[in-house]
Amino acid sequence: MASYPNTICWVGDLNGHCQMIEQTLLPAEYKEIEVSTQEQMWDAIKRLAVRGAPAIGVAAGFGVVLGIRDSKASNWDEFERDLKATTEYLASSRPTAVNLFWGVDRMTAAAHSVKDKTVPEIKQHLLEESQRIWEQDRDICRRLGQHGHELLAEGETALTHCNAGGLATADYGTALAVFFAAHEAGKKIQVFADETRPLNQGSRLTSWELHNAGIDVTLICDNMAGQVMKEGRIQKIFVGSDRIAANGDAANKIGTYSVSVLAKHHGVPFYVVAPTSTFDMDTAHGKDIPIEQRDPDEIRRGYSGGLNAPADVKVYNPAFDVTPHEHIAGIVTEFGVIENPTTERVREHFRQNGLLADQ
Amino acid sequence: MASYPNTICWVGDLNGHCQMIEQTLLPAEYKEIEVSTQEQMWDAIKRLAVRGAPAIGVAAGFGVVLGIRDSKASNWDEFERDLKATTEYLASSRPTAVNLFWGVDRMTAAAHSVKDKTVPEIKQHLLEESQRIWEQDRDICRRLGQHGHELLAEGETALTHCNAGGLATADYGTALAVFFAAHEAGKKIQVFADETRPLNQGSRLTSWELHNAGIDVTLICDNMAGQVMKEGRIQKIFVGSDRIAANGDAANKIGTYSVSVLAKHHGVPFYVVAPTSTFDMDTAHGKDIPIEQRDPDEIRRGYSGGLNAPADVKVYNPAFDVTPHEHIAGIVTEFGVIENPTTERVREHFRQNGLLADQ
Repeated sequence: MASYPNTICWVGDLNGHCQMIEQTLLPAEYKEIEVSTQEQMWDAIKRLAVRGAPAIGVAAGFGVVLGIRDSKASNWDEFERDLKATTEYLASSRPTAVNLFWGVDRMTAAAHSVKDKTVPEIKQHLLEESQRIWEQDRDICRRLGQHGHELLAEGETALTHCNAGGLATADYGTALAVFFAAHEAGKKIQVFADETRPLNQGSRLTSWELHNAGIDVTLICDNMAGQVMKEGRIQKIFVGSDRIAANGDAANKIGTYSVSVLAKHHGVPFYVVAPTSTFDMDTAHGKDIPIEQRDPDEIRRGYSGGLNAPADVKVYNPAFDVTPHEHIAGIVTEFGVIENPTTERVREHFRQNGLLADQ
Repeated sequence: MASYPNTICWVGDLNGHCQMIEQTLLPAEYKEIEVSTQEQMWDAIKRLAVRGAPAIGVAAGFGVVLGIRDSKASNWDEFERDLKATTEYLASSRPTAVNLFWGVDRMTAAAHSVKDKTVPEIKQHLLEESQRIWEQDRDICRRLGQHGHELLAEGETALTHCNAGGLATADYGTALAVFFAAHEAGKKIQVFADETRPLNQGSRLTSWELHNAGIDVTLICDNMAGQVMKEGRIQKIFVGSDRIAANGDAANKIGTYSVSVLAKHHGVPFYVVAPTSTFDMDTAHGKDIPIEQRDPDEIRRGYSGGLNAPADVKVYNPAFDVTPHEHIAGIVTEFGVIENPTTERVREHFRQNGLLADQ
């Protein structure tokens, strides 16, 4: 039977702590860490100890609990000030991750909904809300897997980029949920995993997760994706997303856009697998999604630290890119598949599933 | 003034040795090594201590000298047997590198041309022939640079993949010769260099060479090439080649094909820069070029050795891919540019330059 990682959870009551896998050590070392303050959570998100859009949403929820549980506030106005300080602080850890904002906004809304209660009651309510985010994420993963694996036939081989697996969520992932669900359903499938430079989430995390679950996975360098498609080895592509614009343009780990161009050239259907919480309906087009620029040393050094380049060479290191909706065969959400996504089709999907008022 | 590496040369007379840069240590350490036996040369080629098509041709020439200089043969027939053993041995070090075969074949032909002389005279002739290969390569680099840099305008930015620089030749390179020549001519240019996993020739060698020469170079991961093209940063692409089929299909470092697809999608002209010795006129199409498969640990480990992936994960590690001639705007040779190469245009270029008998 497949085994999935225990990526992030809450242990104990309001005085407890968040427990998570220290993902920066994988696959050499499996270690769980205790995160007990909002500063530790900010650092864990920034360092990518916890990463992946849904897991960051869960981390944001737990982070808010950590930030407000020691609040000295004696009434709602004082508490709201402390809550705001915490949510703004946490939101500054990774500016591209829409689930971070989604998580803290949901916690803020939950607090407002019980503002007439006592501060201890509000704190307890926020702990419960953060646990609901966690439970719902687990449910969503299962549903993404169910909808997604119907797109992958017996005997097919898929390619994925970066890590949208259990390590990116509270359960068994978004893009990888497709493979886990197919495997559980008894389908024989194969997966090619891009190593995903510069932080090697594909080689460290995706190949580790799939390997652990008994799925036939083959690791390649990012620059080999075109070649394996040319050789006819790939029938489908599934990737996650960090943020999807209202028109279906999907921001994801740098290199995803290149994969989408290669997929288009070779006629391989390219799917994005992401819960509806990943959509930013206020952002009309992908070009409006800000792209985080990261530390040049990530490229100058190999993931394991040795110098791969002159120490002072100039580097361009965008963390994400945007895949235009024209390159996307479908976006798999927890409610089903938005085929050939456009602004209209995204809105229709949201409307049908009660996420958008009829207009 | 720009400085170029002293990649490979012969030191002394027939009892001398080949001196080369130990390229596997770059850029952390600059070290020259002495190669004094054919076994050391086979190993140097296999380990990529010397790499790049033209430099391998030069290495093959010196390797033949090392292999036959101690031959006990007392007549041509005995000598020919020893020569054949050496050339077959050297040719087994890297099966994709056509310049390796070209180099040993040229040495064999040189020996045959003086077969009536004494064995010591034949040996001396072979040393001189190997030095002629070296001198001609230096001349060819300069001519490639001259023809190539006319394709790159003042203020333009080019992208390159892998290392087709001085470190790949006896002088200042093939694809990089274009940038060196443009720089010498006073043009302001910029270069983006793909890091080129798994062996990081781009980050270790190309960025090091261009940086040393005072050229504005920016290092990116392979998976960022599509993004920088999408952002409009790249006006031209120049790459080297390990072997070009008669129809212009060009084998080069894995990932080159992906770059060509991305270039086509973004309308960026894609040029191959290679001497005519790189053409294999007996191979009609790129699909007939064998692709070397390399050690899985190259991908499982980062270039600097640390484990990036589960130690037993399956890996697919092709060393090369083939870029179809339809994706190539031009092939720059030492005689000029073959625009939009096809079998006919390649033959015409060869005929015009006296490399092919009129038919």
